[in-house]
Amino acid sequence: MIDQLIEAIIEKNNPSVVGIDTDFSYLPEAMRQSCASLEDAAKAVLEFNVRLIDAIAPVVPGVKVQVAYYESLGWAGMRTFADTLAYAKDKGLFTIADVKRNDIGSTASAYAKGYFSGSEINGKTFVGFDSDFVTVNGYLGADGVVPFVKDCVKCDRGIFVLVKTSNPSSDQLQDLKVEDGKTVYAKMGELVETFGQDTIGRYGYSAVGAVVGATHPKQAEALRASMPHTFFLIPGYGAQGGTAEDLKVCFDQRGLGGIVNSSRGILCAYRNKRYEGMAFDAAAAAASEDMREDLARVINMRG
Amino acid sequence: MIDQLIEAIIEKNNPSVVGIDTDFSYLPEAMRQSCASLEDAAKAVLEFNVRLIDAIAPVVPGVKVQVAYYESLGWAGMRTFADTLAYAKDKGLFTIADVKRNDIGSTASAYAKGYFSGSEINGKTFVGFDSDFVTVNGYLGADGVVPFVKDCVKCDRGIFVLVKTSNPSSDQLQDLKVEDGKTVYAKMGELVETFGQDTIGRYGYSAVGAVVGATHPKQAEALRASMPHTFFLIPGYGAQGGTAEDLKVCFDQRGLGGIVNSSRGILCAYRNKRYEGMAFDAAAAAASEDMREDLARVINMRG
Repeated sequence: MIDQLIEAIIEKNNPSVVGIDTDFSYLPEAMRQSCASLEDAAKAVLEFNVRLIDAIAPVVPGVKVQVAYYESLGWAGMRTFADTLAYAKDKGLFTIADVKRNDIGSTASAYAKGYFSGSEINGKTFVGFDSDFVTVNGYLGADGVVPFVKDCVKCDRGIFVLVKTSNPSSDQLQDLKVEDGKTVYAKMGELVETFGQDTIGRYGYSAVGAVVGATHPKQAEALRASMPHTFFLIPGYGAQGGTAEDLKVCFDQRGLGGIVNSSRGILCAYRNKRYEGMAFDAAAAAASEDMREDLARVINMRG
Repeated sequence: MIDQLIEAIIEKNNPSVVGIDTDFSYLPEAMRQSCASLEDAAKAVLEFNVRLIDAIAPVVPGVKVQVAYYESLGWAGMRTFADTLAYAKDKGLFTIADVKRNDIGSTASAYAKGYFSGSEINGKTFVGFDSDFVTVNGYLGADGVVPFVKDCVKCDRGIFVLVKTSNPSSDQLQDLKVEDGKTVYAKMGELVETFGQDTIGRYGYSAVGAVVGATHPKQAEALRASMPHTFFLIPGYGAQGGTAEDLKVCFDQRGLGGIVNSSRGILCAYRNKRYEGMAFDAAAAAASEDMREDLARVINMRG
């Protein structure tokens, strides 16, 4: 799956995903006003997402769907989460379920069934939230990651494990220095390289990627060097302050090795003066194009 | 909420919760056989959970519901997750949503809305997965925890942050020694004490608890000493190998300070020779009673 993702990035000349983190408040007033329940809100969010996906599908290779905004609308929100993932896939987009799940043994396997391999009900298999990639938190060690890796191999999928996150307080735990002078996030990076070592594809990247924030360029540069087989999912561009120049270090000599996420900058582009007067979907498409151009300035993709 | 939980523990003389980690395969054959979809399976799981809760409610103060098993059944599973939490609450039980969520800023707030404070839809507020406590993974630092703590204060709820988990590979990251000779999990423990410092209740415990596995008694003993205001949620008893003797160190001089989880040992008790011939719910109640007695042997609760 990582190979196909890289090919889609090359084909669209665009190493970015749109983060479909659709908070109900992001919807235009006209789409919100008649809602009186979580079910109503979840339906309105789905309608927003469908129009958004239609608009951005020609520009980006994939989407990242942040589950928290759907969980905040209860089970009806989770139905919209599933429907959004399915609609994006139907439109030929890669899907990253940003769920940051973490648990052990049979519980981790239950998560992997939900997103990858499916649950067997009397001989038939159903996948509740079918996704190409999920994000995983590796604090629990191999027991929390290996069940996902097994399903990656079985079903040709991929994961991204949190290594160095984009937020200001990521230093509180992740930047602690361990005895050999390395940081906790560097140690997590070493684990991630190990978890992926048997799944390396034709571009040299494995099915086990890493989340590395765009807001820490020095740390990202060191991680790029120490994790040569690990593809990066890069949050923090735009609203969080990361620039194209900051995240350039996440890419290799071929201009490969990472995919950059932008969420609010795209979803709420219609509220930005730059795109004034445009419908939300047209504004999102225009903002996605602008992001592609911004990244192309600094990332020289040679496939 | 932590005060009320402690009072319920004292009242029932039982520092334990039943982990309602209902994998579809745990159901008796008769409840499974007519299921042909995720929706069918989710309904059967709810029926199982309702009977289970009815049976254990007189014995235990609360339940811990592991979301992974519900996510594995898609959105219909999430409806059963919500209905299970609601039913347990109706029966007077404390509810811990074991979701190990972790994200930052507005995304963390979205999770907190889903479980605690609710989403506002045109002036009305709805809580999708109303819970008394949730579990949180603190790898992202304060940005990932504080939004939950704010909602704990606002809505009188509590959280448990992963500190030292019960699984074998928890040592890979958590046991790394940092420069001052402390471990990563001890550092996480220090953060957790800090996060909770303004929420300490009348028993001396804060709204920010910690997950500390029963399978690491030495580490748990040290954490009990260094985290005097932190209430422990203790997994790993039973199926994972932790004994009552192992987890005794998690409790203070009053016999307070922790709550022990057992999942499969209770849910699947009806498949255990000891409870042979009993219906699953009667077996679960009997196994819960046995667990209470086993814990009472070593924990001398004086309130």
